[in-house]
Amino acid sequence: MRINTHLADMNKAYLFAEIAARVAEYSKEQPPREIIRLGIGDVTLPLTPHVAKAFSDAALSMGTPEGFRGYPPYEGYDFLLDAIIRNDYAPLGVTIGRDEVFVSDGAKSDTGNIQELLSADARIAVTDPVYPVYVDSNAMVGRLGKRTATGYERLVTLPCTAENGFAPDLPEDAPDALYLCSPNNPTGMALTRKQLGHIVDWARAHGTLIVFDAAYKAYITDPDVPHSIFEIEGARECAVECCSFSKNAGFTGVRCAYTVIPRELTATADGRTIRLGDLWRRRSESRSNGVSYPVQCAAAASLDDIGRAEINALVSHYLANARIILDGLKQAGLTCYGGVNSPYVWLKTPDGMSSWDFFDMLLRKAQVVGTPGAGFGAAGEGYFRLTAFNSEENTRRAVERIISAI
Amino acid sequence: MRINTHLADMNKAYLFAEIAARVAEYSKEQPPREIIRLGIGDVTLPLTPHVAKAFSDAALSMGTPEGFRGYPPYEGYDFLLDAIIRNDYAPLGVTIGRDEVFVSDGAKSDTGNIQELLSADARIAVTDPVYPVYVDSNAMVGRLGKRTATGYERLVTLPCTAENGFAPDLPEDAPDALYLCSPNNPTGMALTRKQLGHIVDWARAHGTLIVFDAAYKAYITDPDVPHSIFEIEGARECAVECCSFSKNAGFTGVRCAYTVIPRELTATADGRTIRLGDLWRRRSESRSNGVSYPVQCAAAASLDDIGRAEINALVSHYLANARIILDGLKQAGLTCYGGVNSPYVWLKTPDGMSSWDFFDMLLRKAQVVGTPGAGFGAAGEGYFRLTAFNSEENTRRAVERIISAI
Repeated sequence: MRINTHLADMNKAYLFAEIAARVAEYSKEQPPREIIRLGIGDVTLPLTPHVAKAFSDAALSMGTPEGFRGYPPYEGYDFLLDAIIRNDYAPLGVTIGRDEVFVSDGAKSDTGNIQELLSADARIAVTDPVYPVYVDSNAMVGRLGKRTATGYERLVTLPCTAENGFAPDLPEDAPDALYLCSPNNPTGMALTRKQLGHIVDWARAHGTLIVFDAAYKAYITDPDVPHSIFEIEGARECAVECCSFSKNAGFTGVRCAYTVIPRELTATADGRTIRLGDLWRRRSESRSNGVSYPVQCAAAASLDDIGRAEINALVSHYLANARIILDGLKQAGLTCYGGVNSPYVWLKTPDGMSSWDFFDMLLRKAQVVGTPGAGFGAAGEGYFRLTAFNSEENTRRAVERIISAI
Repeated sequence: MRINTHLADMNKAYLFAEIAARVAEYSKEQPPREIIRLGIGDVTLPLTPHVAKAFSDAALSMGTPEGFRGYPPYEGYDFLLDAIIRNDYAPLGVTIGRDEVFVSDGAKSDTGNIQELLSADARIAVTDPVYPVYVDSNAMVGRLGKRTATGYERLVTLPCTAENGFAPDLPEDAPDALYLCSPNNPTGMALTRKQLGHIVDWARAHGTLIVFDAAYKAYITDPDVPHSIFEIEGARECAVECCSFSKNAGFTGVRCAYTVIPRELTATADGRTIRLGDLWRRRSESRSNGVSYPVQCAAAASLDDIGRAEINALVSHYLANARIILDGLKQAGLTCYGGVNSPYVWLKTPDGMSSWDFFDMLLRKAQVVGTPGAGFGAAGEGYFRLTAFNSEENTRRAVERIISAI
């Protein structure tokens, strides 16, 4: 059989799998104290009581003739679609229709699958550093050509570093699609209304699709940072928005997300005008059977009055941890970014250390796991990501250990 | 932006979405009695008590500090992998390693995603009639070329009809991959040990990958029908096997499945020998975050002693319904297949009626929904699928109504 050589030529492992392997290897040496993990962006607080109860009750109801539900609707139950529209968009003054919301098992799936709407030769742009899924999903289907020392031959990378304030300089030679994450993973920096407006204008002028990853919107504290790209005029004609219950409601282990594709988002092919939402629907219906009823009940519970109050407390907890990291490391003389509208702190490695060397040093001297910036792209070299997703106690201890180690 | 014209050129809707739309349209006319659905292969009995409890308990535990779990392992929790190996393979005398089992949210996802392991120009063969997902997933990435009146220009279809006993005649000009489902959806017919052995020998001789869909293996009653392709000598070198908890444990609304990819299954590319399991792992890790802990607990519960006893009762119930359909319709003079090792009965439409005409006639005269054979491929024309997934009462009533209508 002839196999997909693009997939065979991928780098060995997904970034976080590689980190897990290095930590496992070091663990065999029996480290002097427990390892504190500020690496992968996985939450640590349990589901809130209201959400866990809704999840559990619905699971139990699946064992009753009245409560059992088979295949879920492909795009999500109406009760969840309505809750999303009412709670995540209406308060922003953004009107979204039920047929524009698509529930799935994760923003990772959605941001990885969305490339299937594009032609095989579509040119892809990403900010750099970047969440690896955007690149990997395009690379493994061959859209990016051959792997190079720093990326892929057909991948357009837009560096986002301290030098440009972590906002991409936009190319004249516009790509077919730009992946954009704000608040950003990994830099923790968020685009202002003005910055995002500028990108939307550019995308509309060039016919570029923006894949807007808003998985971290719950962490926004700055009133000048939009929660949705659809707060920006014209975005309905150029953007899809991927959201998740993982980082606000703590659903990393539950698996629920949604993507919004506006009706006005169309493309022309062979003289026809085609809605991207229709393409996505056609794809979803053939490739998945949706998300289970109990999971959707849990997600909806996180959006009602009790749920939102509980979940705001989760987010506040993680934001307080981010503050501990920021304050501690800045005081120790490190240069840090992010952490204000985001659970991620993005620090400059000291003394020009490479980010993987810094990773190994922290693991061995501080028994703290972070994520090397270079794992997110060439422009991430010299940076390092710490997450606020551990307990307050562990976060404080990790900061103390890092300060002792550097 | 340049979009995927292969996706844009797909037929309008996924088959079962099309059926749902036709039924919804007819429902507006206020039918004289309730519609009985023997169309989509969705189960109707609730989750069994033991499984629902395991699901619910685990969901509740996610709300406790001790019980919370974040991102699941990419390929599934060890407890579920071990339960699968112990219960689904060991009793067959088949040895499977933990690293060969990959848990996912559905056999639909797995059979739809597996094509990503193949090259863009790989030649694909399917039996005809066929579960539409195998074809659609390849068509939408462009691997099958242009759509024709009866299929796709680059798709190899192997008719399975009454004339060849529903077992495919194998081509000399072998494809890169053959999708094979036994017990078959939609024909309800199962391959014997000898028939499957013949196909495995052919695949090994030609280097063809067999994607073996065993989603209906729980329905096998004939000792001469293998439950796993890995019961066949040499299958570890040419086959992957996709299994599901949907049709045995009633998980259509829970979403859990697994695929087995043996270590010996390799391909050569650019002089390298590459394990397909490694490709699948690399793909999965970049494209999904796995299946939630409560769902995996529910799946594991369906495999323990109590769970298996409960689930055998579910399967027996549906098999008894299949027998009601088979006996009733045969007695009424219809020619019927399947239904013995399968929840599906595949009947020949009377008087050479087209399968969509038969669909419309049954809907309007009997208020019974089935699935037109032509929806599964050109060789399905003149056939019709009925499922045994309704209640016994509804099944009996549906059979009476069909007999009155024909």
